[in-house]
Amino acid sequence: MATTTLKGQPFDRPILDSMLRRRMFYTPSFEIYGGTAGLYDYGPPGCALQANIVDLWRKHFVLEEDMLEVDCTSLTPADILKTSGHVDKFADWMCKDPKNGEIIRADHFVEEVLEARLKGDKEARGVTVEEKEADPKKKKKKGKAAEAVKLDDAVVEEYESVLAQIDNYNGEELGKLIKKWELKNPTTGVEPLPPVAFNLMFQTTIGPSSNAPGYLRPETAQGQFLNFAKLLEFNQQQMPFASASIGKSFRNEISPRAGLLRVREFLMAEIEHYVDPEGGKKHSRFHEVQDVELVLLNRDTQLAGQTKVEKVTIGKAVADGTVDNETLGYFLARIHLFLNKIGVDQSKIRFRQHMANEMAHYAADCWDAELQTSYGWIECVGCADRSAYDLTVHAKKTGAPLMVRQKLETPISITQWEVELNKKLFGPQFKKDGKAVEAAIEALSQEQRESLALTLSQDGKITVEVAGVGNGKVEISKDLLVIEKRTRVENTREYTPNVIEPSFGIGRILYCLFEHNYWTRASDGGDEARCVLSFPPTVAPTKVLLVPLSGHESFKPLLKYLSLKLRSLGVSSRVDDSSASIGKRYSRNDELGTPLGITIDFQSVNDKTYTLRDRDSTKQVRADEETILAAIKSLVEGAKVWADIEKELPAFEGQEADLPVR
Amino acid sequence: MATTTLKGQPFDRPILDSMLRRRMFYTPSFEIYGGTAGLYDYGPPGCALQANIVDLWRKHFVLEEDMLEVDCTSLTPADILKTSGHVDKFADWMCKDPKNGEIIRADHFVEEVLEARLKGDKEARGVTVEEKEADPKKKKKKGKAAEAVKLDDAVVEEYESVLAQIDNYNGEELGKLIKKWELKNPTTGVEPLPPVAFNLMFQTTIGPSSNAPGYLRPETAQGQFLNFAKLLEFNQQQMPFASASIGKSFRNEISPRAGLLRVREFLMAEIEHYVDPEGGKKHSRFHEVQDVELVLLNRDTQLAGQTKVEKVTIGKAVADGTVDNETLGYFLARIHLFLNKIGVDQSKIRFRQHMANEMAHYAADCWDAELQTSYGWIECVGCADRSAYDLTVHAKKTGAPLMVRQKLETPISITQWEVELNKKLFGPQFKKDGKAVEAAIEALSQEQRESLALTLSQDGKITVEVAGVGNGKVEISKDLLVIEKRTRVENTREYTPNVIEPSFGIGRILYCLFEHNYWTRASDGGDEARCVLSFPPTVAPTKVLLVPLSGHESFKPLLKYLSLKLRSLGVSSRVDDSSASIGKRYSRNDELGTPLGITIDFQSVNDKTYTLRDRDSTKQVRADEETILAAIKSLVEGAKVWADIEKELPAFEGQEADLPVR
Repeated sequence: MATTTLKGQPFDRPILDSMLRRRMFYTPSFEIYGGTAGLYDYGPPGCALQANIVDLWRKHFVLEEDMLEVDCTSLTPADILKTSGHVDKFADWMCKDPKNGEIIRADHFVEEVLEARLKGDKEARGVTVEEKEADPKKKKKKGKAAEAVKLDDAVVEEYESVLAQIDNYNGEELGKLIKKWELKNPTTGVEPLPPVAFNLMFQTTIGPSSNAPGYLRPETAQGQFLNFAKLLEFNQQQMPFASASIGKSFRNEISPRAGLLRVREFLMAEIEHYVDPEGGKKHSRFHEVQDVELVLLNRDTQLAGQTKVEKVTIGKAVADGTVDNETLGYFLARIHLFLNKIGVDQSKIRFRQHMANEMAHYAADCWDAELQTSYGWIECVGCADRSAYDLTVHAKKTGAPLMVRQKLETPISITQWEVELNKKLFGPQFKKDGKAVEAAIEALSQEQRESLALTLSQDGKITVEVAGVGNGKVEISKDLLVIEKRTRVENTREYTPNVIEPSFGIGRILYCLFEHNYWTRASDGGDEARCVLSFPPTVAPTKVLLVPLSGHESFKPLLKYLSLKLRSLGVSSRVDDSSASIGKRYSRNDELGTPLGITIDFQSVNDKTYTLRDRDSTKQVRADEETILAAIKSLVEGAKVWADIEKELPAFEGQEADLPVR
Repeated sequence: MATTTLKGQPFDRPILDSMLRRRMFYTPSFEIYGGTAGLYDYGPPGCALQANIVDLWRKHFVLEEDMLEVDCTSLTPADILKTSGHVDKFADWMCKDPKNGEIIRADHFVEEVLEARLKGDKEARGVTVEEKEADPKKKKKKGKAAEAVKLDDAVVEEYESVLAQIDNYNGEELGKLIKKWELKNPTTGVEPLPPVAFNLMFQTTIGPSSNAPGYLRPETAQGQFLNFAKLLEFNQQQMPFASASIGKSFRNEISPRAGLLRVREFLMAEIEHYVDPEGGKKHSRFHEVQDVELVLLNRDTQLAGQTKVEKVTIGKAVADGTVDNETLGYFLARIHLFLNKIGVDQSKIRFRQHMANEMAHYAADCWDAELQTSYGWIECVGCADRSAYDLTVHAKKTGAPLMVRQKLETPISITQWEVELNKKLFGPQFKKDGKAVEAAIEALSQEQRESLALTLSQDGKITVEVAGVGNGKVEISKDLLVIEKRTRVENTREYTPNVIEPSFGIGRILYCLFEHNYWTRASDGGDEARCVLSFPPTVAPTKVLLVPLSGHESFKPLLKYLSLKLRSLGVSSRVDDSSASIGKRYSRNDELGTPLGITIDFQSVNDKTYTLRDRDSTKQVRADEETILAAIKSLVEGAKVWADIEKELPAFEGQEADLPVR
């Protein structure tokens, strides 16, 4: 499927890209030094867009549910990431080309070569090769184009099946695929070396001595987990609750391409929602979202080598088990609503379930919100059920009580066989073996205890197997222990919460917003495309452009007055009093995505009436100051749309002579 | 001078500190792993406080002056920081103790030992030793206390002079001081090894190969400088202008202590204001701030070993040259106004000028806004004139045109001696020496050119000195060049702007706010101090606490209704429906700095009237919903203060029975 612009025009990425750089939405970092792959800076409009999205995120998630926001450090001692599994497992598979030393990502390499061969096959069969949507993970490298070689039908089928589950292979499997099909680096013509794991974390040293290794966090989650006990206390022991964090994370990608979509430093917004694992992980507000319709691509479909999606309500998806539980489902729906709110194209969202090998090492289930772009479907939000993994491993490592003590409304009584040792005699009897014997007794099952109790009462002694002590069997006489059935009453229940984690890559969402809101206006006879970014007013970097008719002195006080007035309404504005024509100035701001413009002319000076212009239609209305400001406020807050304003206020024509009336 | 609380009570740091941790304003990072010096996380109230301060900063600086905000990466290739001078010079001096291997900061070490000796001297002289305000840089280590040894008067004077200018010594000088006075590490009793430089940047590697070293940025400034040309273009070539950035920076402190005041990862907010170096660096809005009074501690006073400050208007300080120029002065005043706005104690601000050796390697002049705390005077904002240093070095290194081309209103004509070579003949004549000869000619001064022109016309040839070519002298005949006086007209002027840089350490400001707004309420007969943080409503983490009289079901709809109502007014609120008494719940929120509280009782359910409580006075008023919400809005926006509300609305007494009426 070819990508199109917001208005259904064929999408031309280089034009959008050059516009985004020209308007400084983003720019390669350190460009005057030649740049560094995977590092980008945001200029003023990109920065404002990012701030607005973060602000909406905070309102939609954090404030809406009283989440506990924390700000943890990026620098992380190695110990913590060792425990979490990142030191051992947070890696991609990379291959080295033995001829030129190039380092390539194994999965991307397999994809590229197989796709090139499939393309060659189609050519050989005389099939018109449609330009396949490129994936950022497999952007073509310069090198020899695939030759038009016809493949066996069975091979074609096998290649296609591999590609549909490419994310499901580990390094060994990728190595086998490379060997099996003799996949060669197109640049050098040789087969790369077998894949080896490359850890994606940036390493450093904390402090002046070299024995304190640390990493830059690859996600914001660990800092939140480590604070779990304090956060629970802050929340006055109430469950469920969520923590949230907005901050930079770092991943040392092997060879980042595809602009803002695969970068080495990026802003994340992550939620860790803690839920009782018992009772099916219900969510008290699930009913509010149960009718939200989502497009789902589940695990089984992908494993069958297909990409067919289904559109269902989240209520149904949870009911039929496609989505594991209510809490996970609640967040999938909330993510969907958030993406809509900020201006993502409804028709370009799908939720894809992770396959088993693809899931992060901690996840029990995981769905990605993917957005469609010219690079293919891009994972922008992950929503994982991390189960009790993280809290458990950190608690085990440190001994910290990362758990919930729940007061039981009705205490429960537990009856079971218990063993009580006579410590006074037990120690002296077994000496250095005491601990091992004690552990062996502790490990006895209820059934064993019951039978041993009988033996003890009959024989006055029992025999217990203790590996490594004597001949592996230890005799214990009845003066050393008591085995009996006892009943105790428990008033509290202890459990380690499970974690549902919605995790947002803000930079990726930003890029998708560019593509989803971009279109071009038919130019006034000229060749150049006139770009427009139709951001919703809530996320647009600047809401109002103030344009004086000319640089005439009489406009200056009005400009200052209006700027202040708008600021007091909480509406961001910019003045463009450059000498360019009004049309040019509006054009520039169409590219910046500014939804509204106020033109100040000589009549404005006399009677304080202004022209208000709508970015998308270029239509204009005219009214007095109070009316115009009220209209702006209602548009920016989303209470009204331009069609409402057009109905209410008199149209104004002319003046913007060099813009075509659509 | 002993520190006091906001209400003039003796300040007890451990009580404040334990409260800040208990309420999770901040907490040591990775505490369950034993923590890591210099790394702290912010919990929910700290996070909200930080967000509010950043928001006010953005409004006060960025929006007020249409600054261009950018967001650059923390990861920085080594090249850039080599050029900027950080790789070579961004270091502290550290000494190693030869006995136990301890690594200590040289300047802090000298300070500690000299102060201990001075203290010992006072004791020996029988002078009561006042508890000196500790400096975070010289927090006492455990070790042998100084003995009461009397020093010569001359030595005392010398020590005191050294301490007054301790920031002015380099490593060699510190080493000499250690040798001269045989300063010994109190822990081991031996003299440490001579100071060596320790670079404060965290190093890492960018990408999979090990030949791309990089650092975490130690300041946000460099990213802004590298984007200068793009930002100037974005600003449509208009000067002056400023860029701004809010983001994390990283410094690998040698042995961080003093909590939030010296950390390894911190949030900075930096402005780079670009100004034409000609014309005295005037600022068009200086008149708006010229009457702002600042407390100044200038360089000369410090070098004279004193700490006497003067309170003057910034207008006078710039006029008499104490502060170098208007733009620097403008920002000092704006910084002062910002600090006041967020709740810094007016009587605890001073601006201290840097001494020569103390200044960063790039600075031409620098003033720090220092805030007084129990740790002494803390540098919270730096305001440096970085001159053209950064833009110049980066332009030189990369060839990028980091400069301004100013169109001259009246073109200037320049008349001078110019040399024109006959390239056709010149090359073949000198062959490989051509470049050297050309460079020698290019380097000739106007006087030399004038004299050579005469020679050329008389003799038909000239002799030019060219090092390394032939015997060092080269003869050039008149067919190879023309030397004549020519006049050209220039319409543009090129210059490298100077940079004025206000640079804010947000974490330090946060900590000072804690101390400046903290006080304790006389307890109700109990022993425990009841802490209050009297943040201004604008920066308070939460504005309104909603307190139902009890957990009764009938309050729940009202709580939800009021939360939504407040949210729609942009006012953050929290519900506390725990089972604690109303007084306890208010007490908890006094510690969180929540300025207002609404009590919901059974009457509220019937007639929608509420009690509104003021944190600082604990006074209460009662009115209907609309009136209460209007009062809250006016208080939060700073339009009114509590005294106004008390006059307007009827007082309400009782209910908060367990709080003393002040």
